[in-house]
Amino acid sequence: MARVSQEHLDARRRQILDGATRCFSRHGFHSASMQDVLREVGLSAGAVYRYFTSKDELIAAIATEALATVRAAFERAAAEHPPPLPDVLLTQTLGDVLAGGLLGDGPGAGDELEFPRVALQVWAETLRNPELAKALRQGFDEMHEAWSAVVGAYQEAGLMRADVPADRVARTLMALAQGFIAQQALFGDVEVDQLRDGLRGLMSMTEPGTA
Amino acid sequence: MARVSQEHLDARRRQILDGATRCFSRHGFHSASMQDVLREVGLSAGAVYRYFTSKDELIAAIATEALATVRAAFERAAAEHPPPLPDVLLTQTLGDVLAGGLLGDGPGAGDELEFPRVALQVWAETLRNPELAKALRQGFDEMHEAWSAVVGAYQEAGLMRADVPADRVARTLMALAQGFIAQQALFGDVEVDQLRDGLRGLMSMTEPGTA
Repeated sequence: MARVSQEHLDARRRQILDGATRCFSRHGFHSASMQDVLREVGLSAGAVYRYFTSKDELIAAIATEALATVRAAFERAAAEHPPPLPDVLLTQTLGDVLAGGLLGDGPGAGDELEFPRVALQVWAETLRNPELAKALRQGFDEMHEAWSAVVGAYQEAGLMRADVPADRVARTLMALAQGFIAQQALFGDVEVDQLRDGLRGLMSMTEPGTA
Repeated sequence: MARVSQEHLDARRRQILDGATRCFSRHGFHSASMQDVLREVGLSAGAVYRYFTSKDELIAAIATEALATVRAAFERAAAEHPPPLPDVLLTQTLGDVLAGGLLGDGPGAGDELEFPRVALQVWAETLRNPELAKALRQGFDEMHEAWSAVVGAYQEAGLMRADVPADRVARTLMALAQGFIAQQALFGDVEVDQLRDGLRGLMSMTEPGTA
């Protein structure tokens, strides 16, 4: 029997994940059956089951990829020293995530709704899937640490008051990103520029009392 | 046949919505069957179907109530003139929403996870339910208008730079609230004080370039 190259295996895996993502993004995890996924992927059940034995496994792989996508975009945006201010950092990270979508080069790549719609599905899915909840929690904690370091750098540079715990500001910035993703998934008409300007408005406010 | 009082009808409707909310909050809309809902509500199918003929109708009623809850909490918090600054306004609104939950006085009332978990379900559900998506869009637009007026008041009072469109800041504040709700549903360990302090950190930042 002919040996199958790693490249071929990777490409197949990619093809399956891309098709499943398209399918889930349109119909949601629950309304989409494995049959729908197979049709969208264009492979037989046998071919797909070699890589993923259940819908839950597919969902877990998609969620893991989505977390890695956000993480990589954030790291690219935060690479400068000192890091860009939040309005720029958040805009670049989200712009990057939305532009890339979740799909490598399959049809539908670059669809700005793909990522937010799947993210919303993953969040809701954690309610009934403890494994997924755990993976998301871990991904969030890792990102939270990275964001906290950036906020600490703002404070050290005298760009932000230092009496507010950095981890709280980090969590707040992450909430902003998550809320933006939710609005994008729900309404599909949000531009990252709106978030950038909104954040600039907030950053310009008269400082209230101490924390 | 004895006349049934409006009060009785309202109480029954409340009982059904409370039970359904508890049920959906625990299992998600999809994993919870109508049988599960009936068991949780403690009424017969016949009694429940007089009020709601399908799971979708129940979900729509719960979503509408959730929107009204947030709206009312925001209006209470924004009632002062001039309105409280964002750190206080957002904290009061969300604190109010979480403390009240979605349940009037049924068992589980005051569970701070009830509201966020159901909100996440509703968001994800809009992907496959255009009616629900429309209702949510309308609720969002109305709230967006109210928040924009508050931001306009900040700007008029000289508390925020005036060259940033108020509707963008309003949308950003709403994203913050939505992201906080998502974090609460996902991880269940977020205090509104964290958001308040995080927002104070952002509000203290050195102002970046013009919008």
